Formats: sequence, C-alpha cells, structure tokens
Amino acid sequence: MQPDEFRRIGHEVIDWIADYRERLGDLPVRSRVEPGWVRSQLSALPERGEGFDGLLADLDRVVVPGTTHWQHPGFYAYFPSNASLPSVLGDLLSSGLGVQGMLWSTSPACTEVEQHLMDELVGAMGLPESFVGGGVIQDTASSAALVAMLAALHRKSGKWRRSGVDGDETVYVSSQTHSSIERAARMAGLGEEAVRSIGVSPEALSMDVAELARQVQSDVDNGRRPVLVCATIGTTGTGAVDPVREIAEVCARHGIWLHVDAAWAGPAALCPEQRHLFDGLELADSFCANAHKWMLTAFDLSLFWTAHPDVLVDALTILPEYLRNSATESGAVVDYRDWQIPLGRRFRALKLWSVLRWYGLEGVRAHLRGHVELAGLLESWVAADENWELVVPRSLSLVTIAHRAGDDATREAMDTVNAEGSAFLTHTVVNGRFAIRVAIGAEATREHHVRVMWDALRAV
Amino acid sequence: MQPDEFRRIGHEVIDWIADYRERLGDLPVRSRVEPGWVRSQLSALPERGEGFDGLLADLDRVVVPGTTHWQHPGFYAYFPSNASLPSVLGDLLSSGLGVQGMLWSTSPACTEVEQHLMDELVGAMGLPESFVGGGVIQDTASSAALVAMLAALHRKSGKWRRSGVDGDETVYVSSQTHSSIERAARMAGLGEEAVRSIGVSPEALSMDVAELARQVQSDVDNGRRPVLVCATIGTTGTGAVDPVREIAEVCARHGIWLHVDAAWAGPAALCPEQRHLFDGLELADSFCANAHKWMLTAFDLSLFWTAHPDVLVDALTILPEYLRNSATESGAVVDYRDWQIPLGRRFRALKLWSVLRWYGLEGVRAHLRGHVELAGLLESWVAADENWELVVPRSLSLVTIAHRAGDDATREAMDTVNAEGSAFLTHTVVNGRFAIRVAIGAEATREHHVRVMWDALRAV
Repeated sequence: MQPDEFRRIGHEVIDWIADYRERLGDLPVRSRVEPGWVRSQLSALPERGEGFDGLLADLDRVVVPGTTHWQHPGFYAYFPSNASLPSVLGDLLSSGLGVQGMLWSTSPACTEVEQHLMDELVGAMGLPESFVGGGVIQDTASSAALVAMLAALHRKSGKWRRSGVDGDETVYVSSQTHSSIERAARMAGLGEEAVRSIGVSPEALSMDVAELARQVQSDVDNGRRPVLVCATIGTTGTGAVDPVREIAEVCARHGIWLHVDAAWAGPAALCPEQRHLFDGLELADSFCANAHKWMLTAFDLSLFWTAHPDVLVDALTILPEYLRNSATESGAVVDYRDWQIPLGRRFRALKLWSVLRWYGLEGVRAHLRGHVELAGLLESWVAADENWELVVPRSLSLVTIAHRAGDDATREAMDTVNAEGSAFLTHTVVNGRFAIRVAIGAEATREHHVRVMWDALRAV
Repeated sequence: MQPDEFRRIGHEVIDWIADYRERLGDLPVRSRVEPGWVRSQLSALPERGEGFDGLLADLDRVVVPGTTHWQHPGFYAYFPSNASLPSVLGDLLSSGLGVQGMLWSTSPACTEVEQHLMDELVGAMGLPESFVGGGVIQDTASSAALVAMLAALHRKSGKWRRSGVDGDETVYVSSQTHSSIERAARMAGLGEEAVRSIGVSPEALSMDVAELARQVQSDVDNGRRPVLVCATIGTTGTGAVDPVREIAEVCARHGIWLHVDAAWAGPAALCPEQRHLFDGLELADSFCANAHKWMLTAFDLSLFWTAHPDVLVDALTILPEYLRNSATESGAVVDYRDWQIPLGRRFRALKLWSVLRWYGLEGVRAHLRGHVELAGLLESWVAADENWELVVPRSLSLVTIAHRAGDDATREAMDTVNAEGSAFLTHTVVNGRFAIRVAIGAEATREHHVRVMWDALRAV
C-alpha cells in the first residue's frame, strides 16, 4: 500500500470508526452471537490481494454483531476500558511511525516522551517523590504485578538470578485482591501454596492488618521468607481500599516489597479530593494504575512506578552482543526493555500524550468526577428504594447492589437487563451474597443512561 | 472528542502519516539526538485541553528528529519490524472498536477471528496438523517463550501450580539462542544455573545435538529434571538453523518440551521452497514466529502455536468470581486470557487480517522472496570483493559479513555508514570475530538501496 492509497483508504477507515462511534449507543451492548457463528462467516485466506472494502464490509457484517461494545454508554461491566478518540489517534501515530523502542538508541523519543509523561504524572497525581525516575508503561496490571514480584524476589535474595526461587518465599494478598497477583506468583515459580490470602473486614472488605502481621510473623518463625505484599486501592470486586500505611509498617519490619495495585482507582489520584485513598503510598515500593481503564487511553496502557528502578533493572536485564550500543554503555540513558516482560516495545506513550494534551488535566479530572457524581446519584436512588440495597458502601464510581429478596432476584434482574441490550452489568459475590457491580466509567455515559439502566433493573 | 472532530482531525493524522512515509527515505535512518534532548524540548502537562495541532507540531519538531526510522528502506539493523500501511489501518480499527477480548464473551469476534487466522496459517505455512486449534497471538516472542516454559513446567510436574519449581529443573539452549529464553527461565524462577548453553557447530552455528544428548543424560543421571529445549530456526546473531528433528528425538526420549523459536524466520514457511528449514516441526510442542518482524504486521504481533493448548490453559488459568460467565462454563468457547501473561487483550488479529487480505498470500510471499533475492545479490557482491567476506553462509535475507583486515576495519566501516545516515547496520560477534549483520527486511528496501549501502561500506 502506497502512501497515496493509504491517504484515501485511511480516510475511509477514520470515517468508519466515526460512524461506528456515532451509532454505538443504538446497538445492544453485548454481542448476541452463538459460539462459532463468527468463524462460520469467515472466508479462507485469499491467494491474491484484495482491496480494503471487503474487510470493512466484514466488519459491518460479522465483527460488529460479534462484538461486545466496550465504548457503549451502557457498559457497566467489569471495569470499563476507555478508548477515547484522541487516544485512538495517538495510537494510530504510534503504528504509523512504526518504531520499536526496546533501547533508548532504537528511538530516543519513544523512551524520553515516556519518561517525561511518567515524571509529570507523579506531580499531577500527587504521587511520592520517590517515584520520580521510576515510571514505565506496562501493557497491563498483570504484567506490572509480575515485574514487581520479580524485583521483590531479586531484592530479597542475592542469588535469585543465579539459582532461582528457594521454595520458602511467601506472598501476601487479601481475599479481595485481583487474581493476577496469585497468577504472577505461579508464573514466578512460587506456586499457589506460597500465597497467603489474608482476611478482610466484614464491612469495608479491606485487608485485616492484624491478621497480616500475625501471618507474616508466623511464616518468619517457620523459616519462610516473606517477599511481597500486594495492597489494593479499589479492589475489582467492590472497590475496597486496603490500609496502605498500616500494611507498609508490617512490610518495613520484615523487609517485604509492598506493591500497591490501583489498576482501576489509580487515576482518581488526579483529583485532590480523592488523595486520602492513597494515604501511605510514599511507603510503597511499587504502584500501578491503568490508564486504559479510567483514564481515557485505549487498551493497553498500564502506568507503573517503582521507588527502586535499579532493583527492577538488575532483576530483568540481560545484554547479548547484538543489543550492545554506545548509548547504553555510556550509562546516560534508560533502556526500557529492562523494565518489562517482553523485549520489544511499542511507542505507547503517544496515546497517553494525546489524551493528556487533548483533555488537559482539567478535562481528565472532569471525566473522573462526572462518573463519581453519577455513581453518587445511583447510590441515592438505591438507598431510597425499598427492594434494593447497597451491599457495600459506594467506592468512587463503583456501586455494588443486590435485591433484598435474595440472590435469585438479583441474578434475574441482571440477566434480564443484560438480555434486553441497553446495558451490560457483571456480578461479584460479597460475603456469600450475589451482587451486581455497576461500574460507571464509559466516556459517553450520562445521567439518563444510568437512569434507564436503574429503571430497567427495578422493573424486573 | 466527538465523532465529527475525530473525522476531521483523523484525516489530518492519516495525512501526517502518509507524508511521513513519503519523505522517510530522505531522513537519516538513525536519530542523531543526544541523550536528554527530547525531554528538554517537552512542555509540562497542560491544565486545560488543547487541540491536536500542538501534538502534530511536536511530532515534527521533536519526535521525528528523535526517532530511529524502523520503516526506512535503509534499515538493516537487528531485524526490521514491518509496519505496513494496511496493518496500520487494521490496528487503527482495533483501537477504534476499543474492545478488550480477555474472554470469548467480552467480544466473540476478537477471539474467533484470531482462531480462524491462526488455523488458516497452519495450512498456509505448512505447519503440522497438531497445531490446529492451538494458535494464539502473543505480543512478542519473549512472552511466547515464557508461556511455553510455564506450560512445560506444568506438564513436567503435577505439583508446579501448587508448590512451584523444585530447583532441579533444567532448560537447554545453544550459545546462539536468543537471550529471551534465558530471561524466561529467570522469570519462571529457575535461575541462570538451570540453563545449559549447548555448543554449536563451528561453521553453521547450529546446536550440537550430540552435546545436547550428553548434557541431558548427565543431568538426568544427577537427579535433575530436563524441562524444555529451545531450538531456533534462524538465530538472531547469524540466522543459524538448529536441527529440529534430531533435537526432537532427544526431547522425546526424556519427555522434554521442545519449543521452536522462529521469531524472525518463521514467516518464510509461507514459501514452499523454504519449508526444508522447518523439518521436524511436527515433533515440536510449541512454535513461535513474529508477524511483526518479517510479515508486514505492525509491532506487536507474535504468532504462537502449541500442540498442547490444554496444558497451556491448565498452567495459566485462574477463575475469580467476577470473570465467571455462562459461555465459559459451557465449555464451548476459548478464553484467550488463559493463553498469555496479561489478563486483558487487544483485538490484534485485525491488523494481521488486514495484511493477509490486502497482500494476499501471494503478496506476502513476494515480499519475503524479494528480500531473499536482494540478500542473494549482496552475497554475490561480497563474495566477489577482495576486501570483504561472508562470516557465515547467508541465511534467507540475513547476510553476515566482515572486512578481511580485521575487527577494527569492520567496525569502522559500520560506524561510518551509520553516521552518514542512509543506512543503519548492527553487529554481532561470530567465533570471536566482529561482524556486520545486514538484515534485509524493510518493506521499501529495493536493489538500489542495498547497492548504496554496500558501496558506502566498501568506500570506507
């Protein structure tokens, strides 16, 4: 494809996306296709090249019906994943440039724009000074958790790189921590038995620090080596916030790496009125917040900071001959390949840069505050309803609710609304009770959308 | 940004990329900026949002001078990473749809288009039937190697998930294997001491199978448990090809997982005349080929197949309440989150689909054959030159050469050409000798580009 063809077809693709985003709200949020239907509609790979029209036609005919529309204003499932249109353009520029930024020298701008943004965000989010110079973009919070764990293992034992894990390492989560931490422990070779699941307070569902302290002490007494605690600011299930400062004190006593997972809630740190949720963060060793969840940036872009980039790099670095270069050897540059699981890397910073410049910090804060406000409205409606109740207190823009008549009524309401098509809700289980998670966070969601969804739930 | 603004600005962004690709050949391939220059040019994050013009202006003013142009026709460094314009559009569609395909149910098309393409490629590339149904898109070959290793560990020991690695596992590479395998072993908790580096034949630099067999037997005799061998088809240094079939026999005797890394050379399997390189692949447990290197697909997109998807899924799966859904529980669908390191995933298949439809299989083969032919030309020029020589036989489109006068002359020629700007070459060390790797693989590279580069090298 020559640049001139790209110009013409590129405009058509842009228009296709604009059209899709315009009509999005009229589509059912969830795809209604049966397993196998999409495949049944696809042709064999063509021997000879074809134009782009066939692909666009297949998008309309097969892909759109086979898609669950994450950008739909009625998407309240999981946590919404914003792909704002400025971020789409930033990502397009990244693909268009086609650079691969594994080393500083393989594209200095790819590294330095990222360093700049990560350091600027430390200030804008009120993060601790210890994170300056320690920021890097990961693909997801799962990968961020894994690199934190590898750095923690390396710091704990001078021989981890040489001889691996010992089998006496332990890792601490709460019963509400995201499953990616346990999965990271498995990938790191620790096994599930190394993961201690600490209980939570029955109301707030936040980690029981006394139990954590007891478990750590007991493990130490039994010759185990506590390596990492994961505290969460905004759990996936209900948005619970662990007491980071108190957890950090336990970690400090035992030389344990404290990773703070704020994959969803992290961007809220841009709003000064939410900073109290991040109390104690200056005591953390690493921190993660997904720009691709609530910060208007197309998947995938997870913000990760560590106070110990030297440890992280030392844990992950390897330098074969074919990657040697004078810039790296000068020690004057950062090579981000040593900060992540893969070797190669996209110029992801461009999509984040596009978002932060288009909306401004003010615009991103307005986006966050708008959702918190809508969630507050929903909370008040639920509180005033005789059949429904909040299962846990609202957390930012996440409202977790259940029907007073029991699990069957809650599940039936959710299934009915999901089948109807104007909204998509997912569930969790809180203290044994089935509950609907209303995660408000799509860019296009407005009060009338939330109202329609709430009325539909009540009508069941 | 509203769809109408997106339409207008999106056209400008498309045009910016078209302009960039048009003038690319006139820019110096490598960025010439000093460390810190890019950052010194960047502004603080704006409090108020701004238009898109400032970003585009900064691309011209700061990012382009700070970029090493991977799509430049004079890019012969590392392995080129194609970001063909159809793949740029496919990736744009993925961002525009903004879906997150962690589960089948979170976007059936995201999963099923990928399954379709991966199965179709089994046929188109002449891969073994055992890979049908076992294909998945990873971000990079590093991640592919890591998931292969985790699956191998799980298969070897029924208690790996529960209690982790034992400390007696061993992994086998050759001295030429990509560093990502050793790095994967480190990440998996095995440590560097678990990695046996097997010697290679002095000419072809391919793994010495007799030495592999001896080392495995010796490890078994000493109570170690061999878990994985990585064979390479097309090593990074020189494009060496390990004898997969013979290696597989050793693996079969000891129940070892055979991973075949063809990150660079893999796409050549599309050409029947190159299939001999892949002899024995039906005996492999997993295989990886990067579409983002030599298959016209914008980074990142690594093709990964395993003959044992059940083992892989069982190694990596975890199912918290908030991810439960009826489609998963029916067992009728594939949830690709269980096949990879992260949880979330982009609709990467769209960019691969765009490439395969635009070029057709014929077009992709022509792309590959064109580079092999150019490399053959260069090989003949080098062979006819009295001052230069091939250090190892040409491998596909990779030509590894050195000046007969010694390392200083070779290095000086490379550094001079790199400084001049019309070409970018990187090096390796072969049997202690400094050598230039000429990796022909940019989409725009034609005979006159290779001629200019060769004349420049000779002129030094």
